[in-house]
Amino acid sequence: MDSHGVETLADAKDWSHMLSDECASRRNSVMQAMHHILAQPGIRSLGPGAPRPEYFPFYQFHLVVSSPDGSTQTSQITTEKYDTNQGGGALDIAVALQYGQGTGSAPLVDFMSEHIRLTHRPPYRNWSCILTSGNTSALDIALRMFGRPGDYILVDEYTYPVVYETGLPLGYRFVSIKMDSEGMVPDSLETTLSHWNTEVKGSKPKLLYVIPAGQNPTGATTSLERKNAIYRIAQRHNLYLLEDDPYYFIQMPLYPNARSMDVKGCPAERDFPSSVADCIGKLIPSYLSIDTDGRVFRMDSFSKIIAPGVRMGWVTASEQIIERMIRAHELSVQNPSGLSQLMLFKLLHDNWGHLGFARWLHHLQHEYGMRRDALLNALEQHVPRDIVSWQPPRAGFFVCASPFYSGWTNINGGLQVWVSVDWKCHPEATQRSPRMIEQDIYEAAIECGTLVVPGSWFLAPESRNTMQEIYFRMTFAAAPIESFDEAIRCFGFAVRRVVSLAHPA
Amino acid sequence: MDSHGVETLADAKDWSHMLSDECASRRNSVMQAMHHILAQPGIRSLGPGAPRPEYFPFYQFHLVVSSPDGSTQTSQITTEKYDTNQGGGALDIAVALQYGQGTGSAPLVDFMSEHIRLTHRPPYRNWSCILTSGNTSALDIALRMFGRPGDYILVDEYTYPVVYETGLPLGYRFVSIKMDSEGMVPDSLETTLSHWNTEVKGSKPKLLYVIPAGQNPTGATTSLERKNAIYRIAQRHNLYLLEDDPYYFIQMPLYPNARSMDVKGCPAERDFPSSVADCIGKLIPSYLSIDTDGRVFRMDSFSKIIAPGVRMGWVTASEQIIERMIRAHELSVQNPSGLSQLMLFKLLHDNWGHLGFARWLHHLQHEYGMRRDALLNALEQHVPRDIVSWQPPRAGFFVCASPFYSGWTNINGGLQVWVSVDWKCHPEATQRSPRMIEQDIYEAAIECGTLVVPGSWFLAPESRNTMQEIYFRMTFAAAPIESFDEAIRCFGFAVRRVVSLAHPA
Repeated sequence: MDSHGVETLADAKDWSHMLSDECASRRNSVMQAMHHILAQPGIRSLGPGAPRPEYFPFYQFHLVVSSPDGSTQTSQITTEKYDTNQGGGALDIAVALQYGQGTGSAPLVDFMSEHIRLTHRPPYRNWSCILTSGNTSALDIALRMFGRPGDYILVDEYTYPVVYETGLPLGYRFVSIKMDSEGMVPDSLETTLSHWNTEVKGSKPKLLYVIPAGQNPTGATTSLERKNAIYRIAQRHNLYLLEDDPYYFIQMPLYPNARSMDVKGCPAERDFPSSVADCIGKLIPSYLSIDTDGRVFRMDSFSKIIAPGVRMGWVTASEQIIERMIRAHELSVQNPSGLSQLMLFKLLHDNWGHLGFARWLHHLQHEYGMRRDALLNALEQHVPRDIVSWQPPRAGFFVCASPFYSGWTNINGGLQVWVSVDWKCHPEATQRSPRMIEQDIYEAAIECGTLVVPGSWFLAPESRNTMQEIYFRMTFAAAPIESFDEAIRCFGFAVRRVVSLAHPA
Repeated sequence: MDSHGVETLADAKDWSHMLSDECASRRNSVMQAMHHILAQPGIRSLGPGAPRPEYFPFYQFHLVVSSPDGSTQTSQITTEKYDTNQGGGALDIAVALQYGQGTGSAPLVDFMSEHIRLTHRPPYRNWSCILTSGNTSALDIALRMFGRPGDYILVDEYTYPVVYETGLPLGYRFVSIKMDSEGMVPDSLETTLSHWNTEVKGSKPKLLYVIPAGQNPTGATTSLERKNAIYRIAQRHNLYLLEDDPYYFIQMPLYPNARSMDVKGCPAERDFPSSVADCIGKLIPSYLSIDTDGRVFRMDSFSKIIAPGVRMGWVTASEQIIERMIRAHELSVQNPSGLSQLMLFKLLHDNWGHLGFARWLHHLQHEYGMRRDALLNALEQHVPRDIVSWQPPRAGFFVCASPFYSGWTNINGGLQVWVSVDWKCHPEATQRSPRMIEQDIYEAAIECGTLVVPGSWFLAPESRNTMQEIYFRMTFAAAPIESFDEAIRCFGFAVRRVVSLAHPA
């Protein structure tokens, strides 16, 4: 019987061929045999060495939490050591602080599974979900699960450096694929794969790593049409997709976010969604939501939508893959912190519920929309448009900007803005490389008091010194909104100072 | 200037040759460069994509915690979102829920470093400490840091199965060393190493894995004299030691724990230590505390002394090794849950202090001492001494027992009791192997309602079917103390039933 209530969906394909030797050879723990015996009523356990909750020195947690609309109104949640014994909830201190399962606590897994169903409605039968210790941990585990030393991973030309920093020491090689305002360009991906010369390069790539919403660093958000095109290529060349999507829920209103700008500096009144669908209906469907083959390993994170310090996220993939990840968890992190799980369960399940969670995400979308608008307004005001270009991101944390911009249009994702700078106008363009000019601007901006991130840091390490375009990533997530104006004024000053000779205007 | 206030200690040796290619090739993140820039006063950050604490939906945590003596008296701790801004403590919600450092939060690292100094006083200058996501995670990271596929790890003949389950898929091979009541036998270790035939077996082992206090499963606790002997062998053969010591602080009063038995079923009044030294003076020094070379990677855990669900521990090793582990953390778990760190910091630093922590450990030692005594008393009463043998453990969670015991004397560690059963008296000893008789007893005990753990589960996988001795591990940590009598009566019944024909008495 289908646990997701849908009878007509097919099962995921078999991905055994993707598994590393390490991952494939991992067995169930010999101690696992005890679990079904412990489940028998009346059994007296002299088996697993789990301490009794009477020796956990915590009796009660009392939390004051935000209301879903982010207003100053707060709610209070109290959890006692033995609530579940007294019918007080599905997780209490005694349970949360005990050894747990490799999946994470069942009640929170259930809540997140329902959330996944509401958000992505995966189009195959046997998907499953596991709670992770955040996307960095999930990616580390994924790169050890799939592929072997020497294998290639297909990545965006500019991408999150952690994928290189984790993958290179494991022996992976990387192939960068051209990007545009929607992220990876399908034609470029198709050409790379169909012209792959196995004799020269070795086996064809089997892994594709993407950050579909508010891509880090470019802020690009991939449309559904583009996702379908990439997915068809993945099917044709039998790629397995690592969908790293921490900014998925930070899909913002279009720029300018007119409503939030009604009253300058003061958030306008907003309509809060009255159903979960009202919130989710506006989001671009994920790769998971078009994944009929079970070829997507989707990594979601609580870092950007609750807090990084909970060190938690969740992965959705086929049961076969999740089972392998449970084995990996059992022999490493075991499961996320029970305190993190307890706090999240109390907040999301007991206090907010699915509608409250959706409203909180809606609240964040508007907050980050305002922050993005403030940064973009500052760019308009202080940065010379003739040498610097940028596009309003639609999702995420970042704006990308570059003096001497070339070729990007219609960027619509990020908590970042990606700014492009045209280095060819630099007076010493023939002597100083784009990498050197980028460094000059980076240092000049710091000297003036503003930290922005050089685009070269997001290139494959071997491409960093031969790059031909200058970009900067700017996040609108971190700084006080009041500081944006001065921060961007400094950046504009730094660009002018470095490039001024070429731009006497 | 020596940060530990001791001028005369030498530096750790260089362990570069121990590092795996993966570990040695891991670089600092390109993003790390931003940290020292962010530390400059007045810098406006459009750099790291860290969300602002105003978007963390937690305002206040109020905890009710145990007093260090484990009495019914409790204390209350309140932590606000922005305590540190208001001089209210070194960690608050805003800090704990933000992205953190690969070491864990500096104030908690400082507290644990002082704890290490008080407990172990490592005899070399440049040791350091990192907060981990528990010993399972630390061991996983360690096995990826040290050694290469095909390398050997030296282990106790009976050991924690996770070391096999983690190591075998990574390509490690294992060499089992004979044990006695104090754990690994030095002569056996020395013979193995000095007679190592490199041509037949490949490179000599470089890694030694030990569980010195209340060894899992045998409950054996290694004396200081034995540790010195093993350490000298490690120096002679240049071994690196993985000291996995979660039961270190569960070193219990000698059996019978006379004072706790004064009033049956009711803990007698105890003297609580009035100084940290009073508590620590009784503990057997660790390998770390005799480690002049920095060749020990010591793993401590909060699981047995606070709660498993915090998913936290700490590793102490030379700075060189800790630096490599920080890089591994940055690309995997990043750091333990901020909520776990916050709760532990508030409990240990703000509420208990070092003396309170030492008193709590003292409290646990007495509690577990009573539990051990209750289990041993039940063994005395219900289990036939002629075919079953055991020794009172001095530390840990486990008692080991075996009908048909052979050769162990004076076991004095564990939260476990290790029980030995003499299979040679079984009427079908020529037809049924020890492994089959062990399984018969295991199943008969379950049928009667008691779960104990077969000793074969702790052998190297290839030795499980050819083993010649029968043991069972019994923990006194998990079950209600009132159930011990009936649990052990059932075990005794199971042993008699399986072996009765040979023992008509």
